[in-house]
Amino acid sequence: MPWDAELERAFHPKTIAIVGVSSEAKRGAPWAPGGPAFITSHEQLGFKGRIYPVNPKASEVLGYKTYPTISAIPEPVDLVIVSVPAQALPDVLEDCIKAGAKNIHAFTAGFEETGEKEGVELGRKVREIAQRGQLRLIGPNCMGLYVPSAGIGTFDQLPRKSGSVCFLSQSGGHCNWYAHYGPNYGVNFSKVISFGNAYVLDSTDFLEYLATDPETKIICMYLEGIKDGGKLWSQVREINRNKPVIIWKAGLTDHGSRAVASHTASLAGQEAIWRGFFAQTGAVPVFSLEEMAEMAMSFLYMKPPKGKRVAVMGLGGGTSVAAADTCSREGLDVPPLSQGTQNELKKFISLAGASIRNPLDTGLVFRNVANLAREMESVAADPMIDMLIVMPHLDMARHVGLEQVDKMVEYLCDFAKNNPAGKPIAFVFHSFANDPWESELRSKLRVELPNKGIPVYGTLTGAARALYRLAGYYRFQNAPAMEG
Amino acid sequence: MPWDAELERAFHPKTIAIVGVSSEAKRGAPWAPGGPAFITSHEQLGFKGRIYPVNPKASEVLGYKTYPTISAIPEPVDLVIVSVPAQALPDVLEDCIKAGAKNIHAFTAGFEETGEKEGVELGRKVREIAQRGQLRLIGPNCMGLYVPSAGIGTFDQLPRKSGSVCFLSQSGGHCNWYAHYGPNYGVNFSKVISFGNAYVLDSTDFLEYLATDPETKIICMYLEGIKDGGKLWSQVREINRNKPVIIWKAGLTDHGSRAVASHTASLAGQEAIWRGFFAQTGAVPVFSLEEMAEMAMSFLYMKPPKGKRVAVMGLGGGTSVAAADTCSREGLDVPPLSQGTQNELKKFISLAGASIRNPLDTGLVFRNVANLAREMESVAADPMIDMLIVMPHLDMARHVGLEQVDKMVEYLCDFAKNNPAGKPIAFVFHSFANDPWESELRSKLRVELPNKGIPVYGTLTGAARALYRLAGYYRFQNAPAMEG
Repeated sequence: MPWDAELERAFHPKTIAIVGVSSEAKRGAPWAPGGPAFITSHEQLGFKGRIYPVNPKASEVLGYKTYPTISAIPEPVDLVIVSVPAQALPDVLEDCIKAGAKNIHAFTAGFEETGEKEGVELGRKVREIAQRGQLRLIGPNCMGLYVPSAGIGTFDQLPRKSGSVCFLSQSGGHCNWYAHYGPNYGVNFSKVISFGNAYVLDSTDFLEYLATDPETKIICMYLEGIKDGGKLWSQVREINRNKPVIIWKAGLTDHGSRAVASHTASLAGQEAIWRGFFAQTGAVPVFSLEEMAEMAMSFLYMKPPKGKRVAVMGLGGGTSVAAADTCSREGLDVPPLSQGTQNELKKFISLAGASIRNPLDTGLVFRNVANLAREMESVAADPMIDMLIVMPHLDMARHVGLEQVDKMVEYLCDFAKNNPAGKPIAFVFHSFANDPWESELRSKLRVELPNKGIPVYGTLTGAARALYRLAGYYRFQNAPAMEG
Repeated sequence: MPWDAELERAFHPKTIAIVGVSSEAKRGAPWAPGGPAFITSHEQLGFKGRIYPVNPKASEVLGYKTYPTISAIPEPVDLVIVSVPAQALPDVLEDCIKAGAKNIHAFTAGFEETGEKEGVELGRKVREIAQRGQLRLIGPNCMGLYVPSAGIGTFDQLPRKSGSVCFLSQSGGHCNWYAHYGPNYGVNFSKVISFGNAYVLDSTDFLEYLATDPETKIICMYLEGIKDGGKLWSQVREINRNKPVIIWKAGLTDHGSRAVASHTASLAGQEAIWRGFFAQTGAVPVFSLEEMAEMAMSFLYMKPPKGKRVAVMGLGGGTSVAAADTCSREGLDVPPLSQGTQNELKKFISLAGASIRNPLDTGLVFRNVANLAREMESVAADPMIDMLIVMPHLDMARHVGLEQVDKMVEYLCDFAKNNPAGKPIAFVFHSFANDPWESELRSKLRVELPNKGIPVYGTLTGAARALYRLAGYYRFQNAPAMEG
């Protein structure tokens, strides 16, 4: 069976064996990762295949008939999920070989990453067995696969809705958060793959599959270390032309690099090498999960910008200055609006206490939708401007009331989708982060709008960074291919 | 009358004239800055002196008898607040000279910052009159003074509680936000001073007063431009030895510098010069209001760290790696814990899926207060460690319940205040920013704890940055004074 077909079976299994399900397991206990939780998580996702718990000491667990070994299961097993102590993993793998099961997700941890001699020795043994049995081992020390379209996943209460983003990660915790909260950014998943210590299947193996996976349009990766840097380099350069590749490379600092060793026992590599990697592949670097989610949201919903000249529209002179500083630090240009636009704006905006150059300190227009529309249209039509960042201050909601806020938001969403100049528009709802009333309104808008396909960013820095990277991505795509 | 005594009158006035109060003014109208709002804001703050509205066309406004001019007011006026169009400001200032009123806050905008010829000319005229009349002009284009202990302030619904932090700002908007939301960081104010275009009174004049102001222990500044750089330099170097000076210098980038010109018509100066300023004065640089509030909170409530070696305690391997990267980028050291501490931790923490080096990936201890206490005590006692950052993930609150969260928080607060090693402890409640349920819990904790004197930071970056600067401040204080 060719490689891709085997992985296809893992991603869309008909039969799953779960090894390491305590016979004490009860429904309704507090959630903790492990065998019993892996059974209920598949139930929650509406998995339509068959689940076989393996436990030699019980005949039934959570209402399922159990089997003493994998080889005792009466049909071929497409995916084995292993949740046993590290010492027991070698025997389970031998059983997989015997049963002819190839796809194994090892949740089991306790190898090199502990820094203990025993763990290192066990890891060596596991690698040897996997190699001998030609096992497609995912992990160990990971959370495996989440594929909503196939009804599979190992975390609690995972969303059932599918999407076009794949997340490939050496951290299971990151998979959990992104899978749960991506939808708040309008980001839903084709697949989420937690692959931990990567003894056999590494990022490059999954990339090979994802390159032609029709479910996946955008690829996000959290990497700690890689085994075959050259392969990753050429794969990403190729794939990135059709599917944007967004990478959070962790452990680039000295302290981070040491932390990687205790997490997935990977070699993290040097910052300079990775700078070269991003420059030559055109992959999009990010440095946190929030950035990753905002970047995926940008690719999903933002119109491609033609350049990096931004107009920033906000409230308050001091904030405008800070906005110019921030955009500038993130690499964007903040040019003065053209004279024609300024003349148009002067017709209905008083200059005392305002500025109509750029950033636009014209907060009062947000109190009147007709004036706001006039301003938005003028600025979006300006040939000096490639993109807009609109920063309404929720502080004003106290003065004008929530009904006026709704009207303003409705207008802005419509304009973002349908502005005739076709320019990308990013929203940042500004509030003083620590105010509960504003925070609540802000949280609401931040979830509602992306789910309608309107990108909202947590901070101006985030918006500027995403727009800069978006512009860079399309510039790279339009540049002639380099010979490598 | 010496300079300080005159400012003292402005900060604690017995009589205030408010010029530019429309005779149409009504109570209950939506809030907008200007004459009528300045009357009600003083009422809200419980101002105990006398308010004299000035309006030649009315006999009564909002229940107050009005006067046609300042000179017609029957007693000396300690503070004049002017809210008239720019064209009318010169005549009002002539009236001030006639009345012998020295302290004037000009809210009026519309001068150089408009970039229009007329505004520039008017500005020149205002300066000339102020100089001739030896007026202590605050502004123009600003929100003036907020002094809770004196019951004065120009924004709506200002807090009445006083504190020991002074904020000196060229942006009125920033004053509004900091005055309102500082208390959410446990930061309350002695004085907030918005001084806009700084025609007469500049940052250095206010600093002279604040240096010996017994109400003020910490000074925050938002600066766009300065007139006397040498004076600021020597003042800050001196004051910073007794009262920490926290400065947000805006307009350091090219685009920001241009935005400053349209805001307060200041010259923003070059980045390199300001780097030297911070290095030689020991002043603490920040780049946003949130950072400023968190820095003031740190000085108010954090024990002085002896060095910059941090232990980070959080949940999730991927997050630990990111934490090490973040702390490292912010300048902190993240050394491995000493062997003794690691041995102690191994007694009750299983190494599979966890790390006890540093950062500590030991999230499960947060589910059990006894284990958490054992971990906190061991880490705080480690001689390799100068400070702790504790990052509970609110995600866990879903699994363990809010009651357990309360217990954990209660223990942590007590430990932060009373840990025998006397080390500073910063909290970051980690949640995926875009989840409404976690956001609400997080907002609540972020406000409640600082109000009990326990510093909570919005992000790990913020905590690491504040701790690095705090350590740097005390290192600078303990270094021998440089000759300048």
